[in-house]
Amino acid sequence: MGIKKTQSTIRLGLLGGGQLARMLALKCHDMSIQPYVLSPSVQDPAAQVTSFFVKGSLYSKKDLTSFLKQVDVATFENEFLDMSLLSKLSKDTKTPVYPSPRTMNLLQDRFKQKNLFKKYNIPTAKFISLPIDSHKTPQQRFNQLMKLFPNGFVLKKRHQAYDGYGTCIVTSIKDKTKAVNFIKKSQDLIVEEFIPFKKEMATILVRNRKKQIIELPLVHTYQEQARCVWLKGPCQHKNKSILIKKLKTMLKQINYVGVIAFELFDTSKGLLVNELAPRVHNSGHYSLDALSEDQFTLHIKAVLNQDLFSPVLQTKGFAMLNLLAGKQLNPQIKMAETKKEVKLYWYGKQEHRPGRKMGHLNALASTPEKALKKLKNDK
Amino acid sequence: MGIKKTQSTIRLGLLGGGQLARMLALKCHDMSIQPYVLSPSVQDPAAQVTSFFVKGSLYSKKDLTSFLKQVDVATFENEFLDMSLLSKLSKDTKTPVYPSPRTMNLLQDRFKQKNLFKKYNIPTAKFISLPIDSHKTPQQRFNQLMKLFPNGFVLKKRHQAYDGYGTCIVTSIKDKTKAVNFIKKSQDLIVEEFIPFKKEMATILVRNRKKQIIELPLVHTYQEQARCVWLKGPCQHKNKSILIKKLKTMLKQINYVGVIAFELFDTSKGLLVNELAPRVHNSGHYSLDALSEDQFTLHIKAVLNQDLFSPVLQTKGFAMLNLLAGKQLNPQIKMAETKKEVKLYWYGKQEHRPGRKMGHLNALASTPEKALKKLKNDK
Repeated sequence: MGIKKTQSTIRLGLLGGGQLARMLALKCHDMSIQPYVLSPSVQDPAAQVTSFFVKGSLYSKKDLTSFLKQVDVATFENEFLDMSLLSKLSKDTKTPVYPSPRTMNLLQDRFKQKNLFKKYNIPTAKFISLPIDSHKTPQQRFNQLMKLFPNGFVLKKRHQAYDGYGTCIVTSIKDKTKAVNFIKKSQDLIVEEFIPFKKEMATILVRNRKKQIIELPLVHTYQEQARCVWLKGPCQHKNKSILIKKLKTMLKQINYVGVIAFELFDTSKGLLVNELAPRVHNSGHYSLDALSEDQFTLHIKAVLNQDLFSPVLQTKGFAMLNLLAGKQLNPQIKMAETKKEVKLYWYGKQEHRPGRKMGHLNALASTPEKALKKLKNDK
Repeated sequence: MGIKKTQSTIRLGLLGGGQLARMLALKCHDMSIQPYVLSPSVQDPAAQVTSFFVKGSLYSKKDLTSFLKQVDVATFENEFLDMSLLSKLSKDTKTPVYPSPRTMNLLQDRFKQKNLFKKYNIPTAKFISLPIDSHKTPQQRFNQLMKLFPNGFVLKKRHQAYDGYGTCIVTSIKDKTKAVNFIKKSQDLIVEEFIPFKKEMATILVRNRKKQIIELPLVHTYQEQARCVWLKGPCQHKNKSILIKKLKTMLKQINYVGVIAFELFDTSKGLLVNELAPRVHNSGHYSLDALSEDQFTLHIKAVLNQDLFSPVLQTKGFAMLNLLAGKQLNPQIKMAETKKEVKLYWYGKQEHRPGRKMGHLNALASTPEKALKKLKNDK
């Protein structure tokens, strides 16, 4: 489906009003693209940064239809929407949506995701799905899983799991109560072998409809309680090029369009893919300062089918630190404390729920370690 | 006057809705500051990038009063407002405005500006003011000026002159008709000696209320028909440090707060100050990519009295090219043509008046010349 074009300025619909849509909207402005944001409240992070705000629900057929009619092309900031509905509405309104809802449907389900990895021979942890109907009790299931994965396992909801939400890690019999409760209240689970990794890494690929595909640097990410605290880069890994090649083949086959992030485990057996996020991603925020073109601009270009060029690294080392809501996270104090050569990005969130991503800091330096040090000193 | 603080987020009022207010507003978002924009239309460049848009006139007492009541502190994107009115309204509403209307009143008048240069021994072209009431005819005035400035002169409106508007250059008797007409229809003129410069340059200083003052690099600017076409930098000049020292003394004495730009002539007799702009300025747009902190962020920090650190140059060479409205300036075509390592900034203007600044391009490279070459190839 070609992009509609009813006026001289392209209207890009952003489905969602969080920080990822906010950063996409900010880059739209520089590109002379009007960012339309569909979101429940004008106080949402993305709604604050555009006059093209549309109040509405991402789950309402009526609101989605009306929104798609107002824009030339639309994209996502999260993968947890009703893709069958969106596919139908995209056809009805003749407004293309990228990545396509059909492709998103494959990727939003962690079990289908893992099967794709298997299909394209992409190294990943062993996994099974936990059938919804079963004659076994949760206790029996737990015992069965302990036998199957003696080194531990991870229970994940197939849908809507992110940042540790919807995830339960089991490494010994001590985790039994927690796991049994998790199994009881969840349907639709995938179980993955627990991977004792050396460190976590991440990388981003970008593909447009012309089939151009580019890659961003490999980075080292550090998580606490399943939430990214910081990252640094660029990093090297001996398995990188062969892995990227396989990922590119997969993206071509599923006709993926846009930015896609891959979270990786660096293990004694090499690089494994943990999971993917079919959208712009926290692990790419460093690109706002460290690359000649950032992930948000690249995603917009991919969605609009503009040419993609591999961005050039502007520094020998970079780092990013998430600003997670806690006791003393006051934007004005933070700004006053911030030393030179550190860039602040706030998301405009009013509500400080503990652990919530409120903003991030970027730094550049002559090595990744020095860049990270600038940010940690800064705290 | 201290900044009002009625909620956890600071509300910064931007008086005006053009591209300078737009770039200030975009940086406010990253700093967790709510950018309130007062401007006549929601389609204005700055109005598009914030949900805190206030429709109104910059010349209406009612609109200004209501706007100042809504914000904690306010600043300018242009110096051509009624400063006596603003000074009164700032007091009435208890909302501070920086730079202060009192200081702006000194700087918005080119004659007072030049007298300041004289007072602080800052090298500048010779000048006189042309009295409004005179018994001489425009022809007699012209002849008198030709005697006074045998190498030519420049007629400038004392107020509201920028980008060549309100300016008339006279280098020989052939310019008589043009000059006489200019004198006839203008009141309130300043006349400056015509300076045959080698090149034009510019620099920016930033000062906060704590009296911290920092300087940005010297750049080489190139104008056609009095409009900046491109700039490159960083540049050196043997007179730079002594000139900067004098400028700093002047800013301290007039208690200037915010970013201020100085346009310079590089002549056989050294560096002269042509004029100043008491606000963020076109000659500082390169800072969005070339410095660790850009002029917009620095202006906001200065207005909020945050600490200022000299930004670090991120590259050995940078350049900026203005995108001036003409026949074939289509944002989407431009984006598609733009090669890697060139960053695009569009201002969201719908109306393409010839010569109007529609956006700009930034590039970095190993030398200023190479950076400029990237942009010119790009055209």
